[in-house]
Amino acid sequence: MKRVYNFSEGRAGMKDILGGKGANLAEMTRLGLPVPPGFTITTAACMDYLKRGRQLTDELQKEIRQALQELELATQKAFNDPEQPLLVSVRSGAAFSMPGMMDTILNLGLNDQVVKRLAQLTDPAFAYDCYRRLLQMFGDVVYGIDKTCFDRCLDRLEKQLGKQLADFSEAEWQQVITAFTAIYAENGKRFPETPMQQLEEAVAAVFNSWNNHRAKVYRQLHQIPDDLGTAVNIQTMVFGNSGEKSGTGVAFTRNPTTGEKRLFGEFLLNAQGEDVVAGIRTPLAIGKLAEVMPALYDQFATLAELLETHYRDMQDVEFTIENEKLYFLQTRNGKRAPKAALKIAIQLVQEGLITKEEALLRIAPQTLDQLLHPIFVEDEVQQAILLAKGLPASPGAATGKIVFTAEKAKALTSAGEQVILLRQETSPEDIEGMVVSEAIVTSRGGMTSHAAVVARGMGTCCVTGCEALTVNEAERTVRCGERILQEGELLSVDGSTGKIYLGRLGTKLTERDQDFHLLMQWADEAAQLKVHANAETVNDLKTALAFGADGVGLARTEHMFFGEKRLLEMRRLILSESEQETAAALAALLVFQKEDFYRMYQITGEKRMVIRLLDPPMHEFLPHTQEEITQLAKDLNQDSRAIKKKINALQESNPMLGHRGCRLGVTAPEIYQMQAEAIMTSALQLAEAGMTITPKLMIPLIAEPKELELVKQAVVDKIQAVFAKSDQTLAYEIGTMIELPRACLVADQLAAAADFFSFGTNDLTQMTYGFSRDDIGKFVGSYEEKGILSQDPFQTVDQAGVGALMKIAVVKARQVKPDLSIGVCGEVGGDPRSIAFFQELGVDYVSCSPYRVPIARLAAAQGKILYDRKENCASISRII
Amino acid sequence: MKRVYNFSEGRAGMKDILGGKGANLAEMTRLGLPVPPGFTITTAACMDYLKRGRQLTDELQKEIRQALQELELATQKAFNDPEQPLLVSVRSGAAFSMPGMMDTILNLGLNDQVVKRLAQLTDPAFAYDCYRRLLQMFGDVVYGIDKTCFDRCLDRLEKQLGKQLADFSEAEWQQVITAFTAIYAENGKRFPETPMQQLEEAVAAVFNSWNNHRAKVYRQLHQIPDDLGTAVNIQTMVFGNSGEKSGTGVAFTRNPTTGEKRLFGEFLLNAQGEDVVAGIRTPLAIGKLAEVMPALYDQFATLAELLETHYRDMQDVEFTIENEKLYFLQTRNGKRAPKAALKIAIQLVQEGLITKEEALLRIAPQTLDQLLHPIFVEDEVQQAILLAKGLPASPGAATGKIVFTAEKAKALTSAGEQVILLRQETSPEDIEGMVVSEAIVTSRGGMTSHAAVVARGMGTCCVTGCEALTVNEAERTVRCGERILQEGELLSVDGSTGKIYLGRLGTKLTERDQDFHLLMQWADEAAQLKVHANAETVNDLKTALAFGADGVGLARTEHMFFGEKRLLEMRRLILSESEQETAAALAALLVFQKEDFYRMYQITGEKRMVIRLLDPPMHEFLPHTQEEITQLAKDLNQDSRAIKKKINALQESNPMLGHRGCRLGVTAPEIYQMQAEAIMTSALQLAEAGMTITPKLMIPLIAEPKELELVKQAVVDKIQAVFAKSDQTLAYEIGTMIELPRACLVADQLAAAADFFSFGTNDLTQMTYGFSRDDIGKFVGSYEEKGILSQDPFQTVDQAGVGALMKIAVVKARQVKPDLSIGVCGEVGGDPRSIAFFQELGVDYVSCSPYRVPIARLAAAQGKILYDRKENCASISRII
Repeated sequence: MKRVYNFSEGRAGMKDILGGKGANLAEMTRLGLPVPPGFTITTAACMDYLKRGRQLTDELQKEIRQALQELELATQKAFNDPEQPLLVSVRSGAAFSMPGMMDTILNLGLNDQVVKRLAQLTDPAFAYDCYRRLLQMFGDVVYGIDKTCFDRCLDRLEKQLGKQLADFSEAEWQQVITAFTAIYAENGKRFPETPMQQLEEAVAAVFNSWNNHRAKVYRQLHQIPDDLGTAVNIQTMVFGNSGEKSGTGVAFTRNPTTGEKRLFGEFLLNAQGEDVVAGIRTPLAIGKLAEVMPALYDQFATLAELLETHYRDMQDVEFTIENEKLYFLQTRNGKRAPKAALKIAIQLVQEGLITKEEALLRIAPQTLDQLLHPIFVEDEVQQAILLAKGLPASPGAATGKIVFTAEKAKALTSAGEQVILLRQETSPEDIEGMVVSEAIVTSRGGMTSHAAVVARGMGTCCVTGCEALTVNEAERTVRCGERILQEGELLSVDGSTGKIYLGRLGTKLTERDQDFHLLMQWADEAAQLKVHANAETVNDLKTALAFGADGVGLARTEHMFFGEKRLLEMRRLILSESEQETAAALAALLVFQKEDFYRMYQITGEKRMVIRLLDPPMHEFLPHTQEEITQLAKDLNQDSRAIKKKINALQESNPMLGHRGCRLGVTAPEIYQMQAEAIMTSALQLAEAGMTITPKLMIPLIAEPKELELVKQAVVDKIQAVFAKSDQTLAYEIGTMIELPRACLVADQLAAAADFFSFGTNDLTQMTYGFSRDDIGKFVGSYEEKGILSQDPFQTVDQAGVGALMKIAVVKARQVKPDLSIGVCGEVGGDPRSIAFFQELGVDYVSCSPYRVPIARLAAAQGKILYDRKENCASISRII
Repeated sequence: MKRVYNFSEGRAGMKDILGGKGANLAEMTRLGLPVPPGFTITTAACMDYLKRGRQLTDELQKEIRQALQELELATQKAFNDPEQPLLVSVRSGAAFSMPGMMDTILNLGLNDQVVKRLAQLTDPAFAYDCYRRLLQMFGDVVYGIDKTCFDRCLDRLEKQLGKQLADFSEAEWQQVITAFTAIYAENGKRFPETPMQQLEEAVAAVFNSWNNHRAKVYRQLHQIPDDLGTAVNIQTMVFGNSGEKSGTGVAFTRNPTTGEKRLFGEFLLNAQGEDVVAGIRTPLAIGKLAEVMPALYDQFATLAELLETHYRDMQDVEFTIENEKLYFLQTRNGKRAPKAALKIAIQLVQEGLITKEEALLRIAPQTLDQLLHPIFVEDEVQQAILLAKGLPASPGAATGKIVFTAEKAKALTSAGEQVILLRQETSPEDIEGMVVSEAIVTSRGGMTSHAAVVARGMGTCCVTGCEALTVNEAERTVRCGERILQEGELLSVDGSTGKIYLGRLGTKLTERDQDFHLLMQWADEAAQLKVHANAETVNDLKTALAFGADGVGLARTEHMFFGEKRLLEMRRLILSESEQETAAALAALLVFQKEDFYRMYQITGEKRMVIRLLDPPMHEFLPHTQEEITQLAKDLNQDSRAIKKKINALQESNPMLGHRGCRLGVTAPEIYQMQAEAIMTSALQLAEAGMTITPKLMIPLIAEPKELELVKQAVVDKIQAVFAKSDQTLAYEIGTMIELPRACLVADQLAAAADFFSFGTNDLTQMTYGFSRDDIGKFVGSYEEKGILSQDPFQTVDQAGVGALMKIAVVKARQVKPDLSIGVCGEVGGDPRSIAFFQELGVDYVSCSPYRVPIARLAAAQGKILYDRKENCASISRII
């Protein structure tokens, strides 16, 4: 096993063993770019070190010494050399960029003797400045000595001597060194005099930093395996801080915000890299370099473009100038804003550097989110007062007046105000208030709580689980720490960060431009999975189509019963005391539902639309307060005590596992029949207008094949009656949700009775884990903190559990009906990682909230491309 | 296809095509017993008829006529013959005994002419009585004419003529016939004059009765397939009602209540079979026959014993005597009380007629229930008010509210009440009400009446022929002497003595006799699956061991925190405001728990006992009423509003899916650690007393392998601390419940971290179906009624869904740990049908409530015997 690679021995493809930084240094060396010579210790050496109880092996030490000798030969310098002392930098560099690890030690090789020679070779101020930087960095990263000790010491000396560091004499610098040595001693440490010892300790420190707390947290957060290890890069120092003909800078080959094809970056003369990053001095725009050192700028621009062409992507380059000589210290693919990412990817295709497929793979689907929602103006955010932070449940940015009830939201908005609905948690009754609000904030609930799901569906900005807020609905106040806000006060809510600010902040729209539409077009060409939307309101349906949804995978009907008049009829139905009353309520609801479906079909036209029949338990439609009950009793001409009794009788211990979904279809078939009549009548009406609509009715919560058969039969009977009455027929389909574990296990039997399947992954995940979305907030924090859940299974499909059940279902169903249409309409239908899994699973479409449609379209394209390349196919064959 | 078999052509093994009755008539004919000649139409002919839209095919009609000709030849009589008219009975007879179907039409072949010839041959009173019976039965079962019309008509005529039916003149009988003919006409029907037409219509009516409502309900209840069909038996009439030298009776070859080896039965002179069953006249004990007709009695006794030996089981025989000549009309294996079933099975083994295995298979495990369930406490019986005494038809003791109809019984029991069904006599229509009643009481009928037979079959306590009671179903009262009881009043019924008491009596356990212990011993020898008990209280643990539990498969710890002092400490822990308070509460609970486990181990000794760590959500321990909260605030010296707030904060929308089980172990590891400390400390103490206890701790509600690892580690850490402190160690095991679908799907990963598995089928069923047991009541009635659920999945394991997950879990776990101990500790662990499945699945033990242990032991034996015979193995290989 080779543990150490000279830069001239590696290349870009060796990231796994040399780390990103090391591989790119080698690649640049190989390309002939001016790179200060050096070598890289491999990631494997790191893991070996960690496994052996943190011991540098003899073999590794030998290889390091050998590489160092070669370096000394190449540079004509040497460690501790009285004439030409060698100074090096030591940098960590894993295969994935990891900010949690130890980063850099500069000027390694200096000690009390060497610094004197360096002072002779350059000047004392420079030499001692280098030395004190080494002492500071080494003390901090190798020995964990609090860095502020050093800073405070420097401040003290400056005050004491009445002058700035830059003006210190050699004797005064000696005082600095003595003081720093004392700080080491106070911490029970001694700075190693021998450069070789410095190097070995620095290498060990980099290795150790792989397992420090921050690095572990970062890896967990980004799902980077723990057994990769980090490489260490040892490189000859070049000094950007050796005078006014020296300098250092960072540049992007294209603008990382706009994507414009022009060098973009900053530099400082007479400075080391950390000075640029630290922001103590204000750097100059890279263009200025053309004025200061025109020839060098041209060289830099030419080489930067060469790098971009070589890497076939926008590069983020670090460089140093030492006495008018240019050195490249790092290159990597540059991070960029979503808008720039799109533009750059498309430009690269147009420039012939990459293929369309590569362009599609270059865009992280989630980043599209930012292009679809408004955001706050950055300057105003900087100055705003942060009130609290919750979960970023639905992106967007909005300002409005606080209201605590749906009624108040409706009242204020109809008076032309903008409101933020702030509640402990929302329920289906709040829907009308939610629709009119600019943003929704709840003090409880997670990313998949009612508020979050509904808000995402509507594209409304939403922050949930903001536990710092204590809502007092009765007093119409909200408390946050010491602060108490009244109804009507202004808040600004950022649904992309979860942050809530006091007062009003300005917003701006991100524009979807040609680039966006072109990329989406490429995505649709590449994808196999179709992308549908979960939508039922006029707004949502229009948004979904505008965002390119191929159809509607889930139109929920429960929200349709919450309008004031409809709710009364629904309640009349539920509380009915006679057959006449039941019939009257059903007749009234039928009229409403006909309108609903007619309007929906007018928008969706001949596109596929799956309508889910009523799902929630009846008690969700009933009032809770005495006041409402009294009013209802009046409206229905019933006894209020009798109503209360019925409401109590309908309460459930676990409504999620209760009398809902098709269980209503079994006990009260007349509701589904009313819905079926409304759907078919609307479709027949539109047929007369020449529209060919094939209604698709979906029955939720099926566990038993006989349930499906029975409920389906009742629906079919009604449809036949509608046909008989109108003397016309239409093709139609009746399918089922697959959202209970049992449904997956008997999918073959269900497939025989269903025209299509749609996985309801929200409920399926709840049942598979035994998690209630509404209650998970009480322990999910601990679960994430302790690493039990590496991901939220309501956001990204749980492949080992839920995914295994889905696989069983797909395999069993396709055994019976090879062409059965199978979709996924849960929350994870819009999640890129999940979509890659669904591609492999072989479902036909995913359905997600309208605002996630573009993300899902891109993810579907990526899923197919990777699937064809067999790059992520190991997972699914293993799960069951 | 042969559609009709002469009795001389069939045999006992042809039940599938001839039905039970037909096959046994053929067998008796073959054995040379005196059986009136006849023939049987096959079950296949029935299914053929039903499939062809209820048409008797030409082929079938031809075969019937042919068989009839042979019968006419054999009997020297003929249909409509002016000299020797042939009369036949028509009886249904499926492969399984089915009280829901049409049963019998007697005297078929009579009409206005034939009755006159019969009057000449016998006497007019007899002949016309036969005819009016035919008209009544035929009208009822073939044309569905309300039978009470005929009865009321007879009453009216008796009054009008001022004499009893028996004393009617021939002319007066003519009036009866005329009146009955009018009743037919009122119902738009005409009695068919031609005997052949009578026969064909009767055959069609029997066929149709296979699909009547009661028959369907009965099949569903007993899980008899719908596609078997019924056979029809046509047999020459013999007349038990042709005078005082004639008679009819029913007898068992052994006592069906005690198992005593002696003829047991009843007979009536000058009567037809229906008179015995209907319970209108009270019959005589069979022994009396020896006095009345000694020779005939001897013949009967000899032949009955021959039948028993031939069938190798106790027989239930129907016979008729016509003019001192004995005829056998039916034999079948007799239904018997559980105590008798045990005794008879053991006697038959001892008599060398059957093997031990056969004996084990002869006992339906559920019937042991009666031997295990309590009898009335003697003292209370002494002081109780005896209301009445009837026949001890089916043993047991039960208290409940009086109901008079099956409907009311169903309504009250579904509301959670216990009821006693009190009727004049029962009929097959009452079956659904009988199933749900605690006891059945009839004012008429003998030990072989419908009520008695059905109740014994179900193991339900029953008293028949309690003639002191006068039931008024219309007014919903029962009169007993001067006393009038209303519906809803409490009665206590002792089925072993026939006594009925007012009010509620306390019960206690019966003693189980030698027969019981011998059978259990045979069962344990035959079984492979071990049977453990779910128990944790001193009483339950003792009961479990007394009933032969091999260990404790599930000791729940949550009940241990509900004692007054413990509850306060638990509440202190949950509501703690400081670390000191938490520590104090834990310390207090530790003391209690040490006592708990010490006491439990003292009882169970070295037997295996699995202790499940705390499972329910915290809010279950908190008070609800303002009063309790105020008191608690005082006790804990906290603010009551603060407590209320915390209680509210702990509320959950779906507690079943909430913060419970191992999720508590993750967020509050100190509770499990306290329990672990208590368990290990107790075990170490008992170790000093020389007991070798291997504590088994079980962690509930695991969904993720990392959950198990984490919670286990916390427990292990505490156990190591206990060992360190006491300077002693012990072997111990930590296992997990498998009760979430996800746990089954990742069972391989869980197996790696667990010492044992225990399936929690209750929760697993809830999650797999998405059913909450607490809420299922709102729709499960509809589900059963509509045949969606053929069985309650909480009582009998759902093989296709839950079973499939269990199979996945067992296969995956055993791949990793072939010897992993796997048990089942849910409700179904004590269900015989489920146990057969678990035998196949290859789990090691089941665990059930103490009272079900003997049932489970027998079921385990049967499961193994049938498994070895490969008699029920098709199911499991198919499910996934």
